[in-house]
Amino acid sequence: MKPLFKDTLKVINVGLAGFGDNVVAAGGECVMTVWQPPALGDRDAAWALAQVFHHAAVEHANQIAFARFLEAHPVLIDVALARDVIHAMASGGRLILHAGPPIAWSAMCGPMRGAVLGAILFERWADTIDAAARLVDAGSVALEPCHHHGAVGPMAGVISPSMPLWVVENRVGGNRAYSNFNEGLGKVLRFGAHDRGVIDRLRFIASDVAPTLRAALARLGSIELKPLMAQALNMGDEIHNRNSAATSLLFKQLAPVMLTADVRRERAAATLDFIAGNDHFFLNLSMAACKSMLDAAAGVPASSMVTVMSRNGVNFGIRLSGTGDRWFEAPANPVDGLYFPGYSRADAAPDLGDSSITETAGVGGFAMAAAPAIVKFVGGTAADALHHSLRMRAITLGANPSFTLPALDFAAVAAGIDARKVVDRGILPVINSGIAHREPGIGQIGAGITSAPMACFSAAVKELARSVQAARERT
Amino acid sequence: MKPLFKDTLKVINVGLAGFGDNVVAAGGECVMTVWQPPALGDRDAAWALAQVFHHAAVEHANQIAFARFLEAHPVLIDVALARDVIHAMASGGRLILHAGPPIAWSAMCGPMRGAVLGAILFERWADTIDAAARLVDAGSVALEPCHHHGAVGPMAGVISPSMPLWVVENRVGGNRAYSNFNEGLGKVLRFGAHDRGVIDRLRFIASDVAPTLRAALARLGSIELKPLMAQALNMGDEIHNRNSAATSLLFKQLAPVMLTADVRRERAAATLDFIAGNDHFFLNLSMAACKSMLDAAAGVPASSMVTVMSRNGVNFGIRLSGTGDRWFEAPANPVDGLYFPGYSRADAAPDLGDSSITETAGVGGFAMAAAPAIVKFVGGTAADALHHSLRMRAITLGANPSFTLPALDFAAVAAGIDARKVVDRGILPVINSGIAHREPGIGQIGAGITSAPMACFSAAVKELARSVQAARERT
Repeated sequence: MKPLFKDTLKVINVGLAGFGDNVVAAGGECVMTVWQPPALGDRDAAWALAQVFHHAAVEHANQIAFARFLEAHPVLIDVALARDVIHAMASGGRLILHAGPPIAWSAMCGPMRGAVLGAILFERWADTIDAAARLVDAGSVALEPCHHHGAVGPMAGVISPSMPLWVVENRVGGNRAYSNFNEGLGKVLRFGAHDRGVIDRLRFIASDVAPTLRAALARLGSIELKPLMAQALNMGDEIHNRNSAATSLLFKQLAPVMLTADVRRERAAATLDFIAGNDHFFLNLSMAACKSMLDAAAGVPASSMVTVMSRNGVNFGIRLSGTGDRWFEAPANPVDGLYFPGYSRADAAPDLGDSSITETAGVGGFAMAAAPAIVKFVGGTAADALHHSLRMRAITLGANPSFTLPALDFAAVAAGIDARKVVDRGILPVINSGIAHREPGIGQIGAGITSAPMACFSAAVKELARSVQAARERT
Repeated sequence: MKPLFKDTLKVINVGLAGFGDNVVAAGGECVMTVWQPPALGDRDAAWALAQVFHHAAVEHANQIAFARFLEAHPVLIDVALARDVIHAMASGGRLILHAGPPIAWSAMCGPMRGAVLGAILFERWADTIDAAARLVDAGSVALEPCHHHGAVGPMAGVISPSMPLWVVENRVGGNRAYSNFNEGLGKVLRFGAHDRGVIDRLRFIASDVAPTLRAALARLGSIELKPLMAQALNMGDEIHNRNSAATSLLFKQLAPVMLTADVRRERAAATLDFIAGNDHFFLNLSMAACKSMLDAAAGVPASSMVTVMSRNGVNFGIRLSGTGDRWFEAPANPVDGLYFPGYSRADAAPDLGDSSITETAGVGGFAMAAAPAIVKFVGGTAADALHHSLRMRAITLGANPSFTLPALDFAAVAAGIDARKVVDRGILPVINSGIAHREPGIGQIGAGITSAPMACFSAAVKELARSVQAARERT
């Protein structure tokens, strides 16, 4: 039999691996490319993508947005009641904020409904859960996303007017971001619980913890969050689902001034005990810091940089810097996780919460290499952790030298998700997530890794292409 | 030309790589073994090794010693003055303890001499450095190793009767270990400094920090050190040259009780400030915990487990469980390190301090995989860190499941150095080390990685073989 080719074949295989396998089986060399059609085969999205890829206006806008993000300098400056800092709450009306993109009361998932009702009890707008539910059913309580008010909250993300908030200011851009206080694990409002113990804890946070921290902060002046987060990333935290080191570092800054600040000794002791007993305490501050860094990058026309990724328990929503306040939504992807004993995927609420603001800012799942404990928690290996962090380089505008990953020889974290690259490469932003029980009040039942759905990014790129085209036609 | 062999050669090459290279060059396959003669060619040591390798009595003794080490449960129970817990100091005589194996005053290196003189000023046995030197020259001050009194101290390791010590008890074995307090960086006694500021700081530690911590501990009852160390190893510390996380975790346990313990508010604030300002604060506690774990394993006849590795600034000394109180000494190996700007190897004191008790217990250099920041500090990569931790498996009795390494998928640290394996394999225990200036009073000028010298282990194995032989002849 005559040979078909005279030389040894050197093949690059694009597409199905089977073709390449045959070449190798026949003794040839073959490089397999990991490639799939842009936008996972969505022709309209691919067409839109072609219009904005290598587009000078988009590149320029991204440089501006990314630079503003990188130079942001989030500083914890105060603790304040929501009604005193969220302008829409100043009038005294019944407004409750929630996680994720907008959603009607009737469509909310169990944990979010439970948290809204708990907040109504906390506000004393009603005395019983039934009365609270009647109030919302009657349309007497306005429900709006945290993100519409510069705020973020984990899981249900519920913020009501009498709750104390962290106040974080980006010292470079001047913009402020807010987050509520972390209640700890177990039965807590953010997972939809609202029994007596939950409401009592919220009152304790408002009456004791918040004023004590406010007094301590007044004495300290402020706390720079970026160096603290950077240190925590070098101490095993990814500052989304693991905040042990960050909480300890914050504690170490706060504790000495508790002894000299103008607060009652018992309150100070109770506050320190509360913080020391909750390794997740820093999470909400991490979120507020990330929010302030990303808000700095928002509103740059034509930029494809993602400034918000968030979940309301039904839909996943994203916002781009260049498309203003528009949300691009799609049903949330399932969470690939490990469940606590006695629970399974059937018990899980859909992916929920504003905490994916951390991944949007290049930490959390993007910084998984910093926290092998997290991948172990969800059943992976240290190598998986490195892989997650490395893979995110393919869909980001660059790296954030303020945050480094020891296990990757202190490489900077990939940051600034470029919606175009997500659509082009079919690589989805990785997100670390807690898993809530779908019934209110049960709490966390597991943790895992999920991803942002492609449909959000495809829709966003289409809108970006449309707006870039419209801008060109105007000029 | 006729071929010498009919089949393709499959070769295992032992020794010089050059032989194997030629086989490969001629088209053969060759596995290169990393092998060198036992004891680096020392015939007497190799002969002694042959007598104790696979020896039933030694194996049995090692099982006992290693089990006692593994089950040790070090707990911080008190802070006390040296004279109240070191029996030899109870009589009120002039006794000063130092790091490493025994050494005469005339032979001591600069930093150790400086520290001894500073301790004499601190004790008010003399008013000036000259008067202090005359006192020691006249033989009026006894100098003995910390290790002879159940104590350990970093660098010069100087402990005098009025210094406060940590008291750590192994709750399983009942044995206690002591260490002095960490003074922070810069000009400090342990690097041989003894100016006014150094002595004042020592007085502040004795008058304010120690009594405050004693009161806080009295309220807490005790602090379990093993879980704290385990957490720190999962937070980027190797608990020898990096103790940031461990210090924070200790701080988090101590701070809340400061507010309720019976101590003056200003003293509590000053104590918390002192701890919060020194990321090395936990080092001395880590050392005392390691010492208590290793003392539990000491004194098992025929055991080849190393229970002490320490440096006096001239010689490196080790002790084995099975050879009682005998020291096996050799000149210390140089430190392969990076120097602070303005300093070089010519300025360095020889390797110094009891802090290699951490490596003896399987942390420090053995747990380098936990702390890539350390290898970066001395010019290496994250891969080097993994390599160091993996290599130590070849010379240890087993692994310590209480301490795990996230970057190696939470593998247990290698622990329990077997002097036989060190001699047999020619692999030396790796040690992380700070580098002191050779002149007293200048302080730390760099940090690096070094190793324990082979001659210590060869001598120890010879003595072990002699004692095992003697025991056999007696029966």
